[in-house]
Amino acid sequence: MSSAHPEPSSFVPRHLGPSDAEVRAMLDALNYPTLDAFIDATIPASIRFRDKLNIPAARSEQDALASFATEMSVNEVWRSYIGMGYSGTHVPAVIQRNVLENPAWYTAYTPYQAEIAQGRLEALLNYQTMVSDLTGLPIANASLLDEGTAAAEAVTMAHGLASAGRDTVMIADDLHPQTIDVVASRASARGINVIVGSPATLVPDASTCAILIQYPNTSGAVIDHRALADTAHAAGALVIVATDLLALAMLTPPGEWGADIAVGNSQRFGVPFGYGGPHAAFFSTKDEYKRSIPGRLIGVSRDSHGKPALRMALQTREQHIRREKATSNVCTAQVLLAVMASMYAVWHGPEGLTAIATRVHHRAESLATGLRKLGLTIRHDVFFDTIRVGGANASAVRAAADAAKINLRYYADGDIGVSLDETTTIADLSDLLAVFNQGKAPAFTAESLAGDVDARFDERFARTSAFCSHPVFSKYHSETDMQRYMRKLESRDLSLTHSMIALGSCTMKLNAAAEMYPVTWSTVGGLHPFAPVAQAKGHASMFQRLESALASITGFHAVSLQPNAGSQGEYAGLLVIRAYHLSRGDTHRTVCLIPQSAHGTNPASAVMAGMSVVVVKTDASGNIDVADLKAKAEEHSKNLAALMVTYPSTHGVFEESIKDICATIHAHGGQVYLDGANMNAMVGLCRPGDIGADVCHLNLHKTFCIPHGGGGPGMGPIGVNKHLAPFLPGSAVISMGGTDAIGAVSSAPWGSASILPISMMYIDMMGADGLALATKIAILNANYMAQRLSAHFPVLYKGANGRVAHECIIDTRPLKVSAGIEVEDIAKRLMDYGFHAPTVSFPVAGTLMIEPTESESKSEMDRFCDALIAIHGEIMDVENGVLPKDDNPLKHAPHTLESVVSDAWTHAYSRERAAFPLPWVRERKFWPSVGRIESAFGDRNLVCSCPPIEEYAQA
Amino acid sequence: MSSAHPEPSSFVPRHLGPSDAEVRAMLDALNYPTLDAFIDATIPASIRFRDKLNIPAARSEQDALASFATEMSVNEVWRSYIGMGYSGTHVPAVIQRNVLENPAWYTAYTPYQAEIAQGRLEALLNYQTMVSDLTGLPIANASLLDEGTAAAEAVTMAHGLASAGRDTVMIADDLHPQTIDVVASRASARGINVIVGSPATLVPDASTCAILIQYPNTSGAVIDHRALADTAHAAGALVIVATDLLALAMLTPPGEWGADIAVGNSQRFGVPFGYGGPHAAFFSTKDEYKRSIPGRLIGVSRDSHGKPALRMALQTREQHIRREKATSNVCTAQVLLAVMASMYAVWHGPEGLTAIATRVHHRAESLATGLRKLGLTIRHDVFFDTIRVGGANASAVRAAADAAKINLRYYADGDIGVSLDETTTIADLSDLLAVFNQGKAPAFTAESLAGDVDARFDERFARTSAFCSHPVFSKYHSETDMQRYMRKLESRDLSLTHSMIALGSCTMKLNAAAEMYPVTWSTVGGLHPFAPVAQAKGHASMFQRLESALASITGFHAVSLQPNAGSQGEYAGLLVIRAYHLSRGDTHRTVCLIPQSAHGTNPASAVMAGMSVVVVKTDASGNIDVADLKAKAEEHSKNLAALMVTYPSTHGVFEESIKDICATIHAHGGQVYLDGANMNAMVGLCRPGDIGADVCHLNLHKTFCIPHGGGGPGMGPIGVNKHLAPFLPGSAVISMGGTDAIGAVSSAPWGSASILPISMMYIDMMGADGLALATKIAILNANYMAQRLSAHFPVLYKGANGRVAHECIIDTRPLKVSAGIEVEDIAKRLMDYGFHAPTVSFPVAGTLMIEPTESESKSEMDRFCDALIAIHGEIMDVENGVLPKDDNPLKHAPHTLESVVSDAWTHAYSRERAAFPLPWVRERKFWPSVGRIESAFGDRNLVCSCPPIEEYAQA
Repeated sequence: MSSAHPEPSSFVPRHLGPSDAEVRAMLDALNYPTLDAFIDATIPASIRFRDKLNIPAARSEQDALASFATEMSVNEVWRSYIGMGYSGTHVPAVIQRNVLENPAWYTAYTPYQAEIAQGRLEALLNYQTMVSDLTGLPIANASLLDEGTAAAEAVTMAHGLASAGRDTVMIADDLHPQTIDVVASRASARGINVIVGSPATLVPDASTCAILIQYPNTSGAVIDHRALADTAHAAGALVIVATDLLALAMLTPPGEWGADIAVGNSQRFGVPFGYGGPHAAFFSTKDEYKRSIPGRLIGVSRDSHGKPALRMALQTREQHIRREKATSNVCTAQVLLAVMASMYAVWHGPEGLTAIATRVHHRAESLATGLRKLGLTIRHDVFFDTIRVGGANASAVRAAADAAKINLRYYADGDIGVSLDETTTIADLSDLLAVFNQGKAPAFTAESLAGDVDARFDERFARTSAFCSHPVFSKYHSETDMQRYMRKLESRDLSLTHSMIALGSCTMKLNAAAEMYPVTWSTVGGLHPFAPVAQAKGHASMFQRLESALASITGFHAVSLQPNAGSQGEYAGLLVIRAYHLSRGDTHRTVCLIPQSAHGTNPASAVMAGMSVVVVKTDASGNIDVADLKAKAEEHSKNLAALMVTYPSTHGVFEESIKDICATIHAHGGQVYLDGANMNAMVGLCRPGDIGADVCHLNLHKTFCIPHGGGGPGMGPIGVNKHLAPFLPGSAVISMGGTDAIGAVSSAPWGSASILPISMMYIDMMGADGLALATKIAILNANYMAQRLSAHFPVLYKGANGRVAHECIIDTRPLKVSAGIEVEDIAKRLMDYGFHAPTVSFPVAGTLMIEPTESESKSEMDRFCDALIAIHGEIMDVENGVLPKDDNPLKHAPHTLESVVSDAWTHAYSRERAAFPLPWVRERKFWPSVGRIESAFGDRNLVCSCPPIEEYAQA
Repeated sequence: MSSAHPEPSSFVPRHLGPSDAEVRAMLDALNYPTLDAFIDATIPASIRFRDKLNIPAARSEQDALASFATEMSVNEVWRSYIGMGYSGTHVPAVIQRNVLENPAWYTAYTPYQAEIAQGRLEALLNYQTMVSDLTGLPIANASLLDEGTAAAEAVTMAHGLASAGRDTVMIADDLHPQTIDVVASRASARGINVIVGSPATLVPDASTCAILIQYPNTSGAVIDHRALADTAHAAGALVIVATDLLALAMLTPPGEWGADIAVGNSQRFGVPFGYGGPHAAFFSTKDEYKRSIPGRLIGVSRDSHGKPALRMALQTREQHIRREKATSNVCTAQVLLAVMASMYAVWHGPEGLTAIATRVHHRAESLATGLRKLGLTIRHDVFFDTIRVGGANASAVRAAADAAKINLRYYADGDIGVSLDETTTIADLSDLLAVFNQGKAPAFTAESLAGDVDARFDERFARTSAFCSHPVFSKYHSETDMQRYMRKLESRDLSLTHSMIALGSCTMKLNAAAEMYPVTWSTVGGLHPFAPVAQAKGHASMFQRLESALASITGFHAVSLQPNAGSQGEYAGLLVIRAYHLSRGDTHRTVCLIPQSAHGTNPASAVMAGMSVVVVKTDASGNIDVADLKAKAEEHSKNLAALMVTYPSTHGVFEESIKDICATIHAHGGQVYLDGANMNAMVGLCRPGDIGADVCHLNLHKTFCIPHGGGGPGMGPIGVNKHLAPFLPGSAVISMGGTDAIGAVSSAPWGSASILPISMMYIDMMGADGLALATKIAILNANYMAQRLSAHFPVLYKGANGRVAHECIIDTRPLKVSAGIEVEDIAKRLMDYGFHAPTVSFPVAGTLMIEPTESESKSEMDRFCDALIAIHGEIMDVENGVLPKDDNPLKHAPHTLESVVSDAWTHAYSRERAAFPLPWVRERKFWPSVGRIESAFGDRNLVCSCPPIEEYAQA
């Protein structure tokens, strides 16, 4: 679509991969006269949306950027000393430029194909090592969505580990309020009792599965909780500690005084506020609980050559495998942000982190000294960076602060909180003193206070153990070395900058540079999530526009932008449905129907929302078995809460029966939750609301161009019908959400607000027509690939006219029988051709699901098809005995550079066949940095922090 | 210096490569107790600067960035319709992010080592193809400094080609005034007569070497110059045409109506205004003149495997080889900007460029129609994007324009110029119409005018020939494809993001991200070079601060920021010296003494400045032969104009005699020009002004952190003593420069103003102490390397205490005798180890000159030394007969991936020895994308535009 250039600066043809000529060629191959004729044959007429979306016409990159800059310029970026889990930080420029602004990092996928993801796996292992060291607990994951979610996951884990009857969690009331909000909401949905009280009043007993405390607490106090931890342990409860990584550079880590689990936010390690996110939350625990840890765990294993190699450990724990047994629906992590935070630690090293922490603490002590001189009361004696001030004239102080464009934390009781960070200068201290002096400079200077201050903690609190002592944290302290280290890791990872990543259900489309630019604008990144909304009018305007666009796209009444991952959207949507039923007195409506073919997150989310899952069968052609559905709906009619359904189906088909299905659910009093994972097949062409859904979530990181970031961030807003709008999630801190809001599902009111501009820019630059055209091309591309591949691999599941939707499943199971070739062999062999594998064994084990998206050109898809067809030929050689079954390029895939260059080459096939299986591979060879990884070895011998360098040397 | 972190956010230890421990280890290796003791032993006490530079203390990255943003926020970025060779443009975001903001592109060096530079060589070949196609002339270079310089080079080339007696160039007076300024200044310095007149009055005759005309002219008129061209040719003169690439998408190219040479600026192809630059100027000519073309020419040759491979063609023409015979001192090109412009053409393709040109022209026609409706006169009938308007009340229009923050071109005669560009919207047209209507909206709308307009040119002017028809201009029109294309090219080039580039005399130091950020700020990039200075107060402030810092660093009275390359600085400095002599009536002072060891640009610049070169001998230890110098000074005493001297010497030594030398020159009435190429050995430790120099230039792209950009941009400001300050260069357009200014040396008043922030940020973040420390570490690093290597290679030239300065020369000539190994073999073999070669055969043929800079850590330098030492071992194997003289890893270097993986391996050494000569090479192998290139083949069969794709296929 890119050759005509009717408008030279139009973005639409830039977003779309195929040229006009390529579109024509694909239509010819599929035998349709026009794109519209093709679409008409693919999408059932009964569900077709024939109107135009209520979205303005497309704007050029430049117009959209300029206009968006104006919109965001309305934001007022005040200095924020609010704290509450979010701190100012200096993003090191070398990290911003080489990671955050580098598409080779941000366009990569989750590192399931570990052999071509060793770069970010190393960065994530560094992250785990850093978290483990700082918290003093040996096993850390990488990473969770936010501090509230991490705390909720900790409670769920503790509950899961606890013996029957331990159904109560005790939560200290000096946690950040949003953490309490998220945890309480999650716990009560799941049937866990919540007791919130001051730490002194919490007395764990035989019904307690865990206590959750914060260190330092939300007011900044550093309290010795050893006795409480001992009491909890004596009572058989686990101790969960929400904490702060920078503080732990100076303070005794929780792991050394009794914590079983530590959680928190790593935002202040070089990730901007972003008006809420994304940031990477951390989670660490004791060795004995390592097999229960939620989220992604990176571990060291070995490859086929016996070399150390990294991969996600214990993947069998993951929700997408366990389905109904799930205890967590965590799917997205915050990889890009965890990488940034880990690089911050690499950049500063242990001495640097200690120096930063010491300076921050010293300044906080100076400030406290000054405030005491002003006659004010500091509410606690021991603190790190945050103080709570009593005795002030709060309204006068606030007036002075507002005049100085300074945000403080104003407690309901008149106390005032001040939280410092690494950006706080002496000049800032002067300003703060003047603010507390009601706008007048005090008689003493901020500088003069420094001499009186002792920044050391006493022996109850002073950290004595080393951290970040692995050499990686001490080797790259010059920018030259640091840049090369990051570039070295980058070069090991295959991203969209190299070749298409045709992951079915993941929609790896273009993440355009113009969409990404606003992410690093200070007007977007500089606002504290709890800054007064009056300072965030730019964001408010964007939220309104984005909600309106998404509502039009989904055909719904209202949208919540709070859920910061698709899985969070599911959970939020189901909670909204649950709240709706409860509001009508239907307490018994807890049955959730879920088709066999559903994403694994669906049942996990249903369980989390307190529902019981009833599975609906799928018929031979991959569609929902309507008869079974009707029977189940009938059977559970009285208790029916919801159906969760993916559309188009996870099999990549537009099911004709969908309207009938929705009507059936409604007839039985249920609500329809539509999983928007496949929204890229619908935008502008059909709408969940029109089809009959009541709620759906949207994966902005799929359909709406937020990059996958190497495995996160994501965003999962939900759209709902009018009757559900009152229940949309609220916030304990900021007034927002529905009139009868469910509790918060994310720590921040609008989730990961700083990446919403990506989706907004996409919508602004595509316009209504461009969005619909993109959907058409996405479907055309998938059908073209299905057609080309079908001569070599059976394509499973097609719609009425033999067409797939935006993805297709090819069946490789027969090749296992005929040639002993597993689907994994094909996936690994694709790496030798320079490609990332499509989705493996989902939704059908032993198959590959391919989704090209609209952003790939026909020539790139042809290259990919050529590779798969060549691999098919290789398999035929195995089948025919030309290649041995145990020594062929598939079984030994992927081939590393070292193995192919090795002076000893003993395989039954040639080096060139191994390395350059098709001529164009020579043009731009991508080398997996390790051979095939033995996952089982690593799971048996779990190592989840940086191993001593000697281990690499020995191998 | 990076482990102590006294101040967590200090930039100084980030800029420096070695840690404190590494500094200590190096001092131990060299046997000095302290860094200062080492420096005292290295720099002669007699020239040591013991004061502190007058530069503020270092600021952190964040402080410096914030403060600089504030400084630049004072700039007012108005809409500029000034034209004059600079047009608004949309920088495609995909190019900005992946090229301009990508250190893998901007930190690369000039592609002398072509095997590891095929990426940018391809981009530059695309540039040449685009220029050649658009101008209609078969040979184009890549690239020159600016349009004025390019025009001056054309005149020089024409003069060089002309028969004796043809010493006059005729210049049309409707050229851009800055072009006339630069050309006239250059021509007259060289003794070429200049006649400026209206094209109609120019009558070339037997004394004319060339006519220089502009198409469209500076007022926008498109004039049929066929007759004039015919006349010129009939008279035996060449026709030089300054032109506009975008206009040529619609207009008959100059090559089709008689131009022998076309020149111009490619800025409007996606490179921001930048308040003057950098931008890439182009130069194309007829096939018969291809061996006379100035600047860099990329050509297609073949590699050792017979595959097509790119490299700089006809390098023997280059100034650094020809020395005294030079006709041009062009050294730096504008590679990064030429890459951007070529990518702009790749991104838009021929249809896209035509669409942009057509829209711009259509809008210009609409505007003209509207202005006629307002009763104004359009001065010319045929125009592309620029019109000259008569009959207006200029002061009233200007008042309205100023109120609307619009810049127009105000002619002295009351006419007003308006130049449109691709950014001009219909809304802009409305605003312009209102401005010309003295602030009131006219009775008609801009939209209404479109219908009346015919945007076609008549047959005299309408382009009929195709351009950019090579497939590369039609393949990458989706952002996904474009990004992958740029990333593919990037992956072929070795840059500082991979490993150290120890080029002697080139100072490849860190280009920090924080230094680079301002380059893409709109406050830095958005100003037209001829915007009123009142709108550029931010720049004025920076210029003042930068000039002051550089004056302090050099010990001079005043600084000119105009020269936009080191060679331009030399030329400007010598012109200033010449002007000084002339002002004293010393017209005869034209002798310039230059030592044998000088950079090749020195004599070339002297010739350009109208001086005659007298060479001074160098003694056996590499120093200037003082006796010979005194003799030559005596001999030429009466006519002595200047000495050009590099300090420390090009041999990398602090000569003890320098003060004596300067005194000698002064005693004979001469001036001392100090070449600042080696300033990185001086900053903060000794100063040209103190030593006795009168002028020096500074390579900001060496010592002051402007990245090399793959071969440009550079900046070469000059500092001068008080008596020379009145002669600092001025501008024909903007009032600036000395009171008795020489003519302009660059098209823009302050040269490449948009990259000056890089040097400013560097100075701001280093402070006086940091700058001096950097120099010390640079010298320490060089001496450490010299010491390590001296056990294996003789180190040529040392100072009094056996120490080198900031670089060292190792002698590989004995190895040619003993083993038949040439220095080129070593250079190419280094690629197999993952390194770029040091400077080859300069200043001494057959040697390598190594300059590590302060930004490299000891560990990286050790890796480099290990590589050279291992290569020495390989050479010993050849010498000892272990490896054959004609089949060893050196002679076949560099080894490509394909050759090493090839099923046929016939060499006398193993694949692993070829590919992984040391263990750490396996960690991060960099593959040259082609084998050793046969330069001579390409020079015999010169191909300088993209060859048909079949040629690649055949190979």
